[in-house]
Amino acid sequence: MNPEYFLTRHTVREFSAKEVTPELIDGIVEAAVHAPTTGNMQLYSIIVTRDPAILARLHPAHFNQPAAVNAPLIVTFCADFNRFEHWCRLSRASAGFGNFQSFMSAVIDTVAVTQQFATIAELSGLGTCYLGTATYNAPMIAEALNLPQRVVPVASLAVGFPLDDASKGPTHRLPVEAVMHRERYSDYSDEAIARSYGPIERMPENRHFVEENGKETLAQVFTDVRYPRAANEQFSKLYYDFIAKAGFPFPG
Amino acid sequence: MNPEYFLTRHTVREFSAKEVTPELIDGIVEAAVHAPTTGNMQLYSIIVTRDPAILARLHPAHFNQPAAVNAPLIVTFCADFNRFEHWCRLSRASAGFGNFQSFMSAVIDTVAVTQQFATIAELSGLGTCYLGTATYNAPMIAEALNLPQRVVPVASLAVGFPLDDASKGPTHRLPVEAVMHRERYSDYSDEAIARSYGPIERMPENRHFVEENGKETLAQVFTDVRYPRAANEQFSKLYYDFIAKAGFPFPG
Repeated sequence: MNPEYFLTRHTVREFSAKEVTPELIDGIVEAAVHAPTTGNMQLYSIIVTRDPAILARLHPAHFNQPAAVNAPLIVTFCADFNRFEHWCRLSRASAGFGNFQSFMSAVIDTVAVTQQFATIAELSGLGTCYLGTATYNAPMIAEALNLPQRVVPVASLAVGFPLDDASKGPTHRLPVEAVMHRERYSDYSDEAIARSYGPIERMPENRHFVEENGKETLAQVFTDVRYPRAANEQFSKLYYDFIAKAGFPFPG
Repeated sequence: MNPEYFLTRHTVREFSAKEVTPELIDGIVEAAVHAPTTGNMQLYSIIVTRDPAILARLHPAHFNQPAAVNAPLIVTFCADFNRFEHWCRLSRASAGFGNFQSFMSAVIDTVAVTQQFATIAELSGLGTCYLGTATYNAPMIAEALNLPQRVVPVASLAVGFPLDDASKGPTHRLPVEAVMHRERYSDYSDEAIARSYGPIERMPENRHFVEENGKETLAQVFTDVRYPRAANEQFSKLYYDFIAKAGFPFPG
């Protein structure tokens, strides 16, 4: 294996002008589809967009974040039961996949293939950036990409060759003991939390981030600026309604 | 990169008696946490279970499927806002993550780290099998593993050294053109569906599967035997209620 790659990989948000050929992307997809999938159903579709006119419709859906706008390609990974149900119809099989459990199976398939695509792309010299906004503005993405019923955007990757940045190392992560539990979940003491998050709070860029936003603590930057409750609730409703309308009604 | 690995990997359901040391697993987790994560929040926990008494409680949650019962380890990957919110409380930050959008961010983080763990484990010589049942019997899993509020099982891997099976090749997958769309989604013609699924239908093991189950078509095995509507709907309700009870109420 290549342990060095896995320990040092990092997200890329700035891309060079070097062309990403269709052949390169096809090869990555051909390998990525060997990611695990529920019952070998491959409950996803992978949409590779490079046409500037369609990218221009995707950018606002991703809040025009620089990683999206700078990338030559946006690859949108969708949970997809449309294709499988089409096969069922042609096979006189009565499909019962319009529900939350089936949607979640498709979501898991979709993120697994997304992550496999990202790994293979990065090992091929490309840089990638997950756009968390794929679940925020699903209706806009669906319109830009002509998504039919039973197809829901789950993850998007900005993809391109990275601009050289030799100074950039791996992103800091919590220590293994903070995210791994042995045998069962053991809940955290205040001391364990303080010990795990202390190094992140003390990083100069994060201290700067707190000051710049006029906050007292780094956590307040997350709760008040980056992921405030009102926005989370607004986008919860938008995504929830979109999923139901796309043909996966919730049981509640 | 190692294109050969990605093109030929396959799920392992039978495991040898060779010990999987804690050091090996710790090293895999240490690398896997460099998978992409929403805002670097690492919204997951990884629970590594090898104690036979606790495994015995997990097995029925996974319907005693052979891959689960045969494996020396079950690793349960959970969407987790418990840890992050604990940090927020200690930091006088008012968290607003008890909602569907935040849950979905955590699900995406969780599956990305699961897939990264699976890749690194397989490149280290281990075999893995996703247990799709993680989302079916979440309440049983939560009880066996002591999961607190805001922690939801999303994916489980059976992990161990594979029993040698040199005859096993990669699993058949749909052709790239069947899962990839250029620029936008282009919906499928009946001919395209028949062309994509034909080779799967004609595989001897699948023809046997159809006959064995007394069905007319392979798709009917999926809709009537493997993933019937009534079971999908029952487990939809169970998972939906669990998620809401775990502290992620739905907006609907």
